[in-house]
Amino acid sequence: MKVENACGKQIEAELSGMSYKPFTQATKYDGSSKVVNFSNALRKSGLKDSQTISFHHQLRNGDYVINQTLEIIRELGIKNLRLAQTALFPVHKSVIDHIKEGMIIRIEGSCNGPVGDYLSRNPLEYPVVLRSHGGRWAAVTSGELHPNVAVIAASSADCRGNATGIIGDSAFGNIAYSQADAWHADTVIVVTDTLVDYPCPFREIYEGLVDYVVVVDKIGDPQKIVSGSLQLTDDPIKKKIASECVELMDAAGIIKDDMIFQAGAGGISLTAIKYLDERLKEKDCVAALSTGGLTKYIVDMYQAGRLKQVNTCQCFDVDAVRFVRDHLESASTIGEYSNPLMKGRNTDRLDTVILGATEVDTRFNVNVNTHSDGRMLHGIGGHQDVSTAANLSIMTVPVYRKTTPVVRDLVTTVSTPGDVVDAIVTDQGIAINPKRKDLIDKVQGLIDLVSIHDLKEQAYTATGGPMDVKFGDKIVGITKYVDGTVLDNIYQIRE
Amino acid sequence: MKVENACGKQIEAELSGMSYKPFTQATKYDGSSKVVNFSNALRKSGLKDSQTISFHHQLRNGDYVINQTLEIIRELGIKNLRLAQTALFPVHKSVIDHIKEGMIIRIEGSCNGPVGDYLSRNPLEYPVVLRSHGGRWAAVTSGELHPNVAVIAASSADCRGNATGIIGDSAFGNIAYSQADAWHADTVIVVTDTLVDYPCPFREIYEGLVDYVVVVDKIGDPQKIVSGSLQLTDDPIKKKIASECVELMDAAGIIKDDMIFQAGAGGISLTAIKYLDERLKEKDCVAALSTGGLTKYIVDMYQAGRLKQVNTCQCFDVDAVRFVRDHLESASTIGEYSNPLMKGRNTDRLDTVILGATEVDTRFNVNVNTHSDGRMLHGIGGHQDVSTAANLSIMTVPVYRKTTPVVRDLVTTVSTPGDVVDAIVTDQGIAINPKRKDLIDKVQGLIDLVSIHDLKEQAYTATGGPMDVKFGDKIVGITKYVDGTVLDNIYQIRE
Repeated sequence: MKVENACGKQIEAELSGMSYKPFTQATKYDGSSKVVNFSNALRKSGLKDSQTISFHHQLRNGDYVINQTLEIIRELGIKNLRLAQTALFPVHKSVIDHIKEGMIIRIEGSCNGPVGDYLSRNPLEYPVVLRSHGGRWAAVTSGELHPNVAVIAASSADCRGNATGIIGDSAFGNIAYSQADAWHADTVIVVTDTLVDYPCPFREIYEGLVDYVVVVDKIGDPQKIVSGSLQLTDDPIKKKIASECVELMDAAGIIKDDMIFQAGAGGISLTAIKYLDERLKEKDCVAALSTGGLTKYIVDMYQAGRLKQVNTCQCFDVDAVRFVRDHLESASTIGEYSNPLMKGRNTDRLDTVILGATEVDTRFNVNVNTHSDGRMLHGIGGHQDVSTAANLSIMTVPVYRKTTPVVRDLVTTVSTPGDVVDAIVTDQGIAINPKRKDLIDKVQGLIDLVSIHDLKEQAYTATGGPMDVKFGDKIVGITKYVDGTVLDNIYQIRE
Repeated sequence: MKVENACGKQIEAELSGMSYKPFTQATKYDGSSKVVNFSNALRKSGLKDSQTISFHHQLRNGDYVINQTLEIIRELGIKNLRLAQTALFPVHKSVIDHIKEGMIIRIEGSCNGPVGDYLSRNPLEYPVVLRSHGGRWAAVTSGELHPNVAVIAASSADCRGNATGIIGDSAFGNIAYSQADAWHADTVIVVTDTLVDYPCPFREIYEGLVDYVVVVDKIGDPQKIVSGSLQLTDDPIKKKIASECVELMDAAGIIKDDMIFQAGAGGISLTAIKYLDERLKEKDCVAALSTGGLTKYIVDMYQAGRLKQVNTCQCFDVDAVRFVRDHLESASTIGEYSNPLMKGRNTDRLDTVILGATEVDTRFNVNVNTHSDGRMLHGIGGHQDVSTAANLSIMTVPVYRKTTPVVRDLVTTVSTPGDVVDAIVTDQGIAINPKRKDLIDKVQGLIDLVSIHDLKEQAYTATGGPMDVKFGDKIVGITKYVDGTVLDNIYQIRE
């Protein structure tokens, strides 16, 4: 059956059993500005009681955006919200007030410092859900954690929402955590302190994803967003651990041309990178790639020709931010880095990763979330993601800290399961996961190994064993593995 | 109820009415190579009779990948396929044989040249579906056009599937069309002739999206993939039309600081760019952005400081490929460029776009798909997308070509509806769409305007009017607007 459409043509509405809609009208796309004030953006977002609002943590302890947003929400009188931040820091301690007044009743995301401390004593009805970077990305993309509104801090943005973290006074590095939220949230608000002429040259978040743009005086305190320069450790015990990491890698045959590595931004990890750099130099080898958070020490390796490529989703210092600006191909999203649901990640070929821990146990489980007194003070970060990816995942810990055993029978909280933890490097020797017989065979005779049980015994002998923590009945938080299953429950502590 | 999970922890399987799955096991991600031979890749892809296979067209008339793929599919004996290429070129005329032997029974994608010509005389049971770049992207992401297997040609890739079009002997520019296919196809095969060390530095398609990597001798003929240098027109009529475009823009008040423009790669468009550049220079103005296909002429404007930024999803010459390699922030995907389903596109603030046409009509409808003899010889490309985006969309045509009227009562095929066509610039004067009263008011007195009906009369007088084409009853193809509605049916022609 022929029908006339709006451009004057007779068209068939059905062909070979398929129906076709006739053209009715065309109107030009609307290219107008999306800039509104903060209050209006939240009002227009449609955010309602009992919904979910998400944030990224890339402004770290310098962030002003989460606090500003929550203050406006309080003024709007919206209640019973679920927070789905990637992480909270000490600067966000006003979240505690919002919990007390009933504005926030659920949290899925890391609660570093005071908020975690508060929740450890004052559990919410639903436990805090702690996920790895990749695990959170997967939860957002799969719909397990659906943000109704995503608020995305940007150090520069244009009036249409093209947004970046790599230019502007508050530059923090490439936006890497928020793409999942930008794709899946019902409403997306970009918040910036630097409105640039259209179009913003870098578009880590692009205008097609953005509903509103909000311009504030300051998104944060640049001094606290990125470090001027992170320090290597001076502590001889930590230096020894760092050095042992490199000996282990070398014995395992990993230090060679085209190796792929990652290390964190802690003192031991940074120092291990320095020693790795020296060892590569001695052997006249060039590494292929570093992944994960970026620091000056890795930038220096690249500049010196000791490293061919850098992929990063987090810039820890000003050198790192500058590097990404000049090497845009180095910018990865968390999805590219560690989404467990995909057919591969930028980390899958990691030869080794060096990570820290608050505790490890004789099953090789690792705790990075709670302290031994039971307080939930840290997030999982990429710990699980890269342990599961790396061929040799190394945990660096002292056997004990002051009166607290670090190597234990069972960790207070499992953050990363022992299945994917390959080696524990301590000040009292190196223990390799017995499941990694291949690795033990490789290094045997080249370096000394100790049993994880011996390390535990040393820790318990020196400290008198784990302290007696009084836990309550209520569950404060749960740690999830990248596949969404539960690794552990974190219990309320009682004074 | 507490259960013990696989890391030795007692966890609650239900909390506040929500159930939680206990952790069972963790295994390391598989980082092994995805390289297999072409035949195995297609076998393992699970491609079956009656399914859909997709390709991009960025190797243009130099492409070897579509032909190689189809030849292997023929050997595998798979039948009744639907092709979902972004475009076919003369080099793909073997598609006709595959149609004749029943291997291909449906096509959704542009059929430029011989295949379109063949189909115009020999319709398939289901009509060819022609969509704009943005319309196709939307159809793939919405599920209207679901590719079971996506075959993505890359000028360099690594063994895990990180793939690019901007480095390698067959470099063709940033891969821009295939991300939608890579996200949505069941199976993704990257085909390259340059396997680089892991990781490929540019990752327009990243490893998380890719199942198999195939290495072939040559993905195409570099001479035909990108032009050495596209030529400006020498034809005085075309030069006049190009010059009139710039007069129209100037009268409309568009030529000023921070203007945003796009122009195609045809002779008139390139020449109009040259004149626009000169006019900007005279006025001492700097444009903000050019979008769309990139050529040396736009690169030159950028280098001369006459243009602040470039966004591109198609590199037409070697200068353009080099530019994108050095200015990665310029690379856009088709989704960013023109996805009608999003909250904005990189084109929404276009001040003007200069486009060609085979025919235009008194309703301002434009035909770019068929010739006046009825043959379906071209795709829609970005024509609809940018006409719908630009504030001033300009069609450049002679009033007639030889004995064929170009300005007509009704175009043979509607490719872009008159609703979004603002001006028609011809060798006999400029006609503005009467719907754009604002524009007419603005330019009145500054330039001469003619009525579209007068232009049509001139065309009919000079040529004797449109030729009498003998159409059959069967429908060869349909043109869809960006919203999925049908603009027109293309009929079989009879000899």
